[in-house]
Amino acid sequence: MRTEQPTLAPTMRAAFFVSDSTGISAETLGSALLANFPGVGFTHRTIPFVDDVTAAHAAVAEIDRAYADGRHPLVFTTVKRAAVREILAGSRGAVIDLLAGHLAELEGRLQQPANEDPGQYHGMGDVERYHARMRAVEYAIEHDDGQTARALDAAQLILVAPSRCGKTPTSMYLALQYGLLVANYPLTDDDFPAEGLPRAIAPFAERCFGITTTPARLSQVRTQRRPSSHYASLAQCTLELRRAEDLFWRFRIPFVNSSTKSVEEMSAVILQTMRLRGGQE
Amino acid sequence: MRTEQPTLAPTMRAAFFVSDSTGISAETLGSALLANFPGVGFTHRTIPFVDDVTAAHAAVAEIDRAYADGRHPLVFTTVKRAAVREILAGSRGAVIDLLAGHLAELEGRLQQPANEDPGQYHGMGDVERYHARMRAVEYAIEHDDGQTARALDAAQLILVAPSRCGKTPTSMYLALQYGLLVANYPLTDDDFPAEGLPRAIAPFAERCFGITTTPARLSQVRTQRRPSSHYASLAQCTLELRRAEDLFWRFRIPFVNSSTKSVEEMSAVILQTMRLRGGQE
Repeated sequence: MRTEQPTLAPTMRAAFFVSDSTGISAETLGSALLANFPGVGFTHRTIPFVDDVTAAHAAVAEIDRAYADGRHPLVFTTVKRAAVREILAGSRGAVIDLLAGHLAELEGRLQQPANEDPGQYHGMGDVERYHARMRAVEYAIEHDDGQTARALDAAQLILVAPSRCGKTPTSMYLALQYGLLVANYPLTDDDFPAEGLPRAIAPFAERCFGITTTPARLSQVRTQRRPSSHYASLAQCTLELRRAEDLFWRFRIPFVNSSTKSVEEMSAVILQTMRLRGGQE
Repeated sequence: MRTEQPTLAPTMRAAFFVSDSTGISAETLGSALLANFPGVGFTHRTIPFVDDVTAAHAAVAEIDRAYADGRHPLVFTTVKRAAVREILAGSRGAVIDLLAGHLAELEGRLQQPANEDPGQYHGMGDVERYHARMRAVEYAIEHDDGQTARALDAAQLILVAPSRCGKTPTSMYLALQYGLLVANYPLTDDDFPAEGLPRAIAPFAERCFGITTTPARLSQVRTQRRPSSHYASLAQCTLELRRAEDLFWRFRIPFVNSSTKSVEEMSAVILQTMRLRGGQE
């Protein structure tokens, strides 16, 4: 993760994400664009807070060093100030401006000039949103693997799955990015056979979302935690997953298989299915 | 957070983020662009997984309903397939394509065509990265408020601060987004007065990063947890923060004041200062 790059084969290219704020927008869209060229190897370097001439020259120096290394830099920028953008344009890198063109288009559409300040989207913004996210993360930690059934009624979403199917990173992502109160409910042998839903979540069936995976994947993940245990055996994983899916079908709990999905994809599917996604604000 | 929008004053505009994958790139850059027009009110709606003609027509229907409501839709899209983009272009919304132009520019720069598949950046991608993030989130939970000093030596970063300064959401964000192993160390009265760094973190001083805030903010946050307690008193908060800053200065531990920063800004400052940020991959 260190930022110093080792000397690299000339086939490697350097990708820079230069921003006047956190760099998240530049990193996110820039990396999404690069993902369309799987044949090319890139080193990634994000340079945030480039909002004045001094920072701009420092960024250019770093970009030009990559050029001198033969890593033909690509520079994705979301910098707003024209003076800073001009300095970046003077680098040896190929600059791809992710903001200016769209901003001009928006000014036309909205019939008003854009605010002059550097990007504020990932700024403090609404203090309430900050506190909501903080509360959500603490709530997710408190309810991770359902250590406590208390306050389950406060949950906006309850992820239900056998142990190690991926509830934790998904609930943490939903808490952090969307400020959702997400609880986890781990299905255990104690929940089967049962007539109804586990008592703890029965009152909240409409807030439940199920997660499954493949027996092989589950066994592999569990083996990392408890090698050659009954818990990690393929037979036990197969049984738990079959029981979980049966439960989800019987009680019409929507569910998704996490084995081929990233945390972001899982979250997008859940938000879409549960209609919990307005947007970022 | 529900997606159904109430009837809105005509001054409200509808912003749609339409993606062929998770919608995160469209949401992130689109929202960053809209943040430059603080005078305009927007409803936000993300429509992920629009990767075929059927999904495209469903999205257009929703966009046109917003138009019929008088909410003059803006449509930010990162959809790659031309057939799907053409259908979106037929909506009553003003479509702003965040991808196609840059993709064409990149094809020129890289002298090769872009991959035809829908965006894969937020896809499963590297299974190892998925497991790294999963491990990092579990590590962050395990080491939240330093319940355990065990495995502190595995930490790539240790956030040091008095209770309630914002260690938890920041460490969770760094774990989720960057797969970093982040531990928290809460400074308590037991750590003062002391000659050196607290014993638990003394061996890892170079991995420590401090967080402070303002006494007023800390008192306010603590009051939410323990109203009118000594713990939440302005005097106690002032004392703890002064001691913490003194400790950071004495042992050259970099630190930042979280009172005016978002989780994203905190993370960007920490990654930059500790040189832990390569990029997303």
